[in-house]
Amino acid sequence: MSAADPLALAADLIRCPSVTPDAATALDVVQGALEPAGFACHRLVFSAPGTPDVDNLYARIGAGRPHLCFAGHVDVVPPGDEAAWRHPPFSGVIADGELWGRGAVDMKGGVACMMAAALDFLAARGTPAGAISFLITGDEEGPAVNGTRKVLDWMAEQGERPDHCLLGEPTNPKALGETIKIGRRGSLSGRLVITGTQGHVAYPDQANNPIRGLARVLNWLTELRLDDGTTHFAPSNLEVTSIDAGNAAHNVIPAQVTAKFNIRFNDAHTPESLKELIAGRIGEALAGTGLAHDLQFRLSGDSFLTEPGPWVEALSAAIAEVTGRTPHYDTGGGTSDARFIKDTCPVVEFGLTYGLIHAVDERVPVDDLHQLTAIYRRFLERYFA
Amino acid sequence: MSAADPLALAADLIRCPSVTPDAATALDVVQGALEPAGFACHRLVFSAPGTPDVDNLYARIGAGRPHLCFAGHVDVVPPGDEAAWRHPPFSGVIADGELWGRGAVDMKGGVACMMAAALDFLAARGTPAGAISFLITGDEEGPAVNGTRKVLDWMAEQGERPDHCLLGEPTNPKALGETIKIGRRGSLSGRLVITGTQGHVAYPDQANNPIRGLARVLNWLTELRLDDGTTHFAPSNLEVTSIDAGNAAHNVIPAQVTAKFNIRFNDAHTPESLKELIAGRIGEALAGTGLAHDLQFRLSGDSFLTEPGPWVEALSAAIAEVTGRTPHYDTGGGTSDARFIKDTCPVVEFGLTYGLIHAVDERVPVDDLHQLTAIYRRFLERYFA
Repeated sequence: MSAADPLALAADLIRCPSVTPDAATALDVVQGALEPAGFACHRLVFSAPGTPDVDNLYARIGAGRPHLCFAGHVDVVPPGDEAAWRHPPFSGVIADGELWGRGAVDMKGGVACMMAAALDFLAARGTPAGAISFLITGDEEGPAVNGTRKVLDWMAEQGERPDHCLLGEPTNPKALGETIKIGRRGSLSGRLVITGTQGHVAYPDQANNPIRGLARVLNWLTELRLDDGTTHFAPSNLEVTSIDAGNAAHNVIPAQVTAKFNIRFNDAHTPESLKELIAGRIGEALAGTGLAHDLQFRLSGDSFLTEPGPWVEALSAAIAEVTGRTPHYDTGGGTSDARFIKDTCPVVEFGLTYGLIHAVDERVPVDDLHQLTAIYRRFLERYFA
Repeated sequence: MSAADPLALAADLIRCPSVTPDAATALDVVQGALEPAGFACHRLVFSAPGTPDVDNLYARIGAGRPHLCFAGHVDVVPPGDEAAWRHPPFSGVIADGELWGRGAVDMKGGVACMMAAALDFLAARGTPAGAISFLITGDEEGPAVNGTRKVLDWMAEQGERPDHCLLGEPTNPKALGETIKIGRRGSLSGRLVITGTQGHVAYPDQANNPIRGLARVLNWLTELRLDDGTTHFAPSNLEVTSIDAGNAAHNVIPAQVTAKFNIRFNDAHTPESLKELIAGRIGEALAGTGLAHDLQFRLSGDSFLTEPGPWVEALSAAIAEVTGRTPHYDTGGGTSDARFIKDTCPVVEFGLTYGLIHAVDERVPVDDLHQLTAIYRRFLERYFA
């Protein structure tokens, strides 16, 4: 195989059963491809109480500016019932023009394409004026505590400061080239516990039903319109994800009820402005009811936006050259490690199509691997031009 | 002891650990007191699939009209942690002027007073023109399947048709003589399951959150004003007793949510009118949401009212003579076996005070036992006058 063959690299990665957080063998494959090409590789194992130890890789070639960092992960979600797969999830079989296996699109395929593109670029052009680096984690699908965030901290301590980062997560809904992600909405979760007074349903005057209070809260919480969207973002949205009283007795008014909700918010809000809004409105809804309540928030990720500039336009042009499509700048979808990287440098995401992520029979068209490699390769040309 | 000593009878009953449905030993005490006085006693054991066998007693003396039936139960709820009791729950200890033990007020005390009153009346006056009967069950605190309802069926087959029934359940909030219960509200339970489409919170357009639909339902269900009360009844009331989605994942919109509710309703409604009202309003609230729903009802007891007539006035007069209080006619509180008896003959309830029912350290003032016996005794005088 050529060191720059994305199909062989992706298959090698898939054959490592690197279910999060056990990514060491897959990182060995990455290191084994980058080190002979001249990358200085650092394996970084991080620990934290209550979370598994995680192996990560940082590799760089070249020095000075501009410094482009490719980021990604080689840990994967569990395959589930392996018998349900048409081909074993860690076999890396090529069949019907597709490469099969867990991680084919999320995101061993993307990592392989980045590597193949960089290796081909270096072989053809030599080390450019500037630097190319790889930040590959084994903790994207897990708690995300001992992964990218800690690698970035380590990089800062070492003086490793990329100017731009391209994260190779799958970004296209259906066809390669549709979408570059230039930001993500934030994610704020809340947990509301309302406490009243338990009692017999036959004596409601001696009880205080917390569900009556929750009904007042849900009345506006489920209809809340946070904004109408911003230039690059869809409207913010709140979903109540669970409500639970857990009362099995049909003749008892429960003492307590819990509601959980999650807000995906855009750049019209800050976590603090949302907390203040929600807490205030809940307080108003429950005023005078005699019910006690406790409201807790957990921030999973702030919203962020990378304003498209020349380097993103270079990526867009490379995509158009290879696919004939002009990608749309998007900020939808779930969170990714970009939420950490954006504090270090501007970051955008572009990778494979995401229809089969986390699914049984995850697979990627061989053509897509070659096309994505070509896109990354042309982007490198433009970036270092 | 005199056969007509309510304190000794009550203590004997308490000493039988007749936790529902094991009432046989307590029924032996009842039979042992009534049979020597001339009552014809019938022990009636009933069975049904999925419920425990239950022993019951029907006893009658005299014949013809009027026929007064005393009704009650000698099964009790479990004592809970016996170590928490000041005196063991089945010891029948007399201390500080009170008789202690599980069932002291609910309702071995009441059964003892009925028996003592009847035995004293018969000893003093002989068998009256008419009949006195006792319907004592061991299945009031349990499923209520093999108890009073089946005894009434058996009585109907035997041609045993009381004209009036006095059920000796505790009816007084604080002091003997406050309240005669002349009816009960009905109890209708409902279970609503709303089904939407599960999905990731980041892609709400691809999901349909059933909690949003439930919020619309709860909005009016928790504020529903069914009526303003009727001549003898407090306003009907609906309580939502539980709402449950059971969704642990903060990033998932749940597929389904369940709400349970219970309605205590008066004679302004029928179960059918309530079902129609609720089903119609839920249908309206969910119209156009794209959510599916399933609504099930379970009727625990219809509402009923015994219009106060001369025999109830006789009871009221007896209460006033003994306690100095003119009792209030009431229809509040939970259900009792009166819901079954009302289909056989007019029934009212009068007994001890209910503050300690089902509680640790259940006990009854010895004075109350003597006073309640005196009330029942004078009622018998007036009834058969």
